[in-house]
Amino acid sequence: MEHTQLIDKLTASARVHSVVGEDDWERWLQRRQAAHTFRVDRIAFDEMDGWSFDPDTGNLGHDSGKFFTIEGLSVQTDYGPVLSWSQPIIHQPEVGILGILVREFDGVMHCLVQTKMEPGNCNTLQLSPTVQATRSNYTKVHKGSGIPYLEYFTEPGRAQIVVDVLQSEQGAWFYQKQNRNMVVAVADDVPVGDDFCWISVGEIQRLLHVDNLVNMDLRTVLSCIPFGPGPEPEEGDGFVAALGRSLRADAVTAHTAQDILNWITDRRSRRDLVVRRTPLVDVSGWVRKEDRIERPDNRHFRIVAVAVEAASREVRRWTQPLLEPRRTGLVTLFVKRRRGVLHLLLHTGVEPGCRTVAEIAPTVQCDPTVYEELKSEPEFLAAARALRPDQIRFDAQLSEEGGRFYEATNRYVIAEVDEDYAEPAPTDYRWISLHQAVELLQHSHYVNVQARTLIACLHSLWGGAAVGGG
Amino acid sequence: MEHTQLIDKLTASARVHSVVGEDDWERWLQRRQAAHTFRVDRIAFDEMDGWSFDPDTGNLGHDSGKFFTIEGLSVQTDYGPVLSWSQPIIHQPEVGILGILVREFDGVMHCLVQTKMEPGNCNTLQLSPTVQATRSNYTKVHKGSGIPYLEYFTEPGRAQIVVDVLQSEQGAWFYQKQNRNMVVAVADDVPVGDDFCWISVGEIQRLLHVDNLVNMDLRTVLSCIPFGPGPEPEEGDGFVAALGRSLRADAVTAHTAQDILNWITDRRSRRDLVVRRTPLVDVSGWVRKEDRIERPDNRHFRIVAVAVEAASREVRRWTQPLLEPRRTGLVTLFVKRRRGVLHLLLHTGVEPGCRTVAEIAPTVQCDPTVYEELKSEPEFLAAARALRPDQIRFDAQLSEEGGRFYEATNRYVIAEVDEDYAEPAPTDYRWISLHQAVELLQHSHYVNVQARTLIACLHSLWGGAAVGGG
Repeated sequence: MEHTQLIDKLTASARVHSVVGEDDWERWLQRRQAAHTFRVDRIAFDEMDGWSFDPDTGNLGHDSGKFFTIEGLSVQTDYGPVLSWSQPIIHQPEVGILGILVREFDGVMHCLVQTKMEPGNCNTLQLSPTVQATRSNYTKVHKGSGIPYLEYFTEPGRAQIVVDVLQSEQGAWFYQKQNRNMVVAVADDVPVGDDFCWISVGEIQRLLHVDNLVNMDLRTVLSCIPFGPGPEPEEGDGFVAALGRSLRADAVTAHTAQDILNWITDRRSRRDLVVRRTPLVDVSGWVRKEDRIERPDNRHFRIVAVAVEAASREVRRWTQPLLEPRRTGLVTLFVKRRRGVLHLLLHTGVEPGCRTVAEIAPTVQCDPTVYEELKSEPEFLAAARALRPDQIRFDAQLSEEGGRFYEATNRYVIAEVDEDYAEPAPTDYRWISLHQAVELLQHSHYVNVQARTLIACLHSLWGGAAVGGG
Repeated sequence: MEHTQLIDKLTASARVHSVVGEDDWERWLQRRQAAHTFRVDRIAFDEMDGWSFDPDTGNLGHDSGKFFTIEGLSVQTDYGPVLSWSQPIIHQPEVGILGILVREFDGVMHCLVQTKMEPGNCNTLQLSPTVQATRSNYTKVHKGSGIPYLEYFTEPGRAQIVVDVLQSEQGAWFYQKQNRNMVVAVADDVPVGDDFCWISVGEIQRLLHVDNLVNMDLRTVLSCIPFGPGPEPEEGDGFVAALGRSLRADAVTAHTAQDILNWITDRRSRRDLVVRRTPLVDVSGWVRKEDRIERPDNRHFRIVAVAVEAASREVRRWTQPLLEPRRTGLVTLFVKRRRGVLHLLLHTGVEPGCRTVAEIAPTVQCDPTVYEELKSEPEFLAAARALRPDQIRFDAQLSEEGGRFYEATNRYVIAEVDEDYAEPAPTDYRWISLHQAVELLQHSHYVNVQARTLIACLHSLWGGAAVGGG
């Protein structure tokens, strides 16, 4: 099938709510939860099995040298209220695969999703892509590592590539982490495992509105699909019509594609970001206790350890460190109808773990309590806090990666502002159409992971998905 | 002017050999050389003024903390014949601007170039872009740092942006270095300094065929211009016709754009590259002497120091370290006519200073002597050495950046191979059209600096530029 035809079929699937062979996802999810037992306990660092602090560097790592390490990072920048600091950071140089397998059923494209437990999930099971595999896993594939469906993503010719792009993850918590975001299509039958289910794009988009259900990995892969505007031009001046027009390549936009590239290059060039990986013992302002590494002022996050017992994973019991944010963050995207075309207020945000100095971030992305203490707020945070209920188009609490973060959640909000709001946008901000954002998403390291979640959520509003997940 | 119109005018300028107000460039260059005196002497490290080795780390840096440092890098990879090593590397976190100002004269777009001395140039003066400025320079612009024409690149609204993209530089010698490659257009008169001259694109392209004349900075900016195929379809089955068709967006290519992105993502994902900046004293296998840091086996490069006296620069006398490669490298691009469309054999090369694990490199890029000693050669090196004269379409020795490298030169070759050659290409290689390569060049970190030079050189063959420099 032609690539454009695959995209058209995925676009059409966004209008459909369908689950193959199941009456509804809630009952399926309940059955999956009943089928497994999970238990996650906080433990002391010295109760971990195979993980230890290096006597010289103090870095926390696994005896095998695999998985990931907790190291130090020293940061100097000219961006934001704090210009120099050191912090613990997760270092995981391997590239993993986050992949969705798609296939047509009765002419409608469906995605193979799974219910997956991760130790940091606040609610145990979340909806995940077909495959989440680290490279240690996926290079072992021919030795039978047991990751189902992996071969469709790694073996040439097994499936047709729809999306394949490296994207960054949380730049405040990961050092230059990137994962491969893939969508691949098959035409033939595929056996469906117990924890797996074929559901339409529109149904996943509806589930995005349910708190902590669609996991970060599924959200980021969804965001990279270059959905088209659909076959019919949008009528009227409503929000959904403006959103549909925002998906068109020929929409009248505030800036040309060249202007946007110029803006990103300019922001990346003018900001200083000098980072250096350091031994964890050299990180100042953080204290290592029996069961946590934290700041005495309780800001940002702490490093903790957990023991996991699971009946649904390859390994039934393991221990590992996790990063635990201290607060639920606020991530907000302002949108507006500009001459009938929805525009997104995006921001070039500098984060220490970013490979490219700055990526495009949502309008607001922070732990608001940090700024209360600093007495210096990011632009638009006050406005994001003062939104009226009638401005809010999307509002859900969603989880970040539960394999590395302990109960990390953000409140994700999409809110509409007036046409003359923030016009022109401040230097670090631009009004960008959804099509322009999705074009950038076809390349690596333009759009950060929080903005990708909000782009997936914004797409969910176009199909007219029911708000509320019940 | 519309952006596409500017590109069309630059494309047309590639067919023109013209220098505004000068009979020819050779006489102008001779006059510029006569107007200046330069002297570069090798000195001992302790004769440098303001540069010293840090007593703890052994890093070589400037007392001001500015410019750049020579540090250590420890590298682990699964690519190439050597899997683990440490080496000195240049660390320069600032983003500089490499910019060409363009303007129409009598309907033909001309580029403002300058003759510029750099201490590492093997022949003192080379042809350079309008502006080569580090960020320390260009943020000082309002304090009168004295870099002519800088304001056209840094002040919004002073000129129209044609190209603006961050690109990497030598990944074997620089740690994650990137510079901003810009082309900006003005409509009004601009005063022309003594060392500056307006010349057409075609004339710069002709000068590319002269050894060590067009400097690296001018070559990389030229390569980022998305030249079109010209207004007329190409006739016939000759080399130049195939090259013209290779510039067309609708040419029949070996791979789709999506396939190429998939290939790059796959190669980046499957290769390990773990690097760590280290103190220079921790680099093993290198010896620091009075006036050099080098390997006892004489491989790769050494770090040296120079004293410079110049009458044409802001500062008339200064000292600085430079990196001196031990050999002239060989950089070769194989091209072929595939169904009448020229295709380039490009390679995903892993280099330690690369931000993205791998970038697209030429078919062959190496110091051949290193591999003689390793008894293990890169693919296509033997073929590149065995080329027949009638296969060679471009052949010149060109210099790398003389501000950081001491007499660093490569022999750049473009050679044509048969249509059935390397079909299909090995896993790390792909046959790619020129249009596809130039599309990638609109984004950062896809195409390395040596491949960019060869793309600029390949463009020079399209206009039918005379080979040999006059």
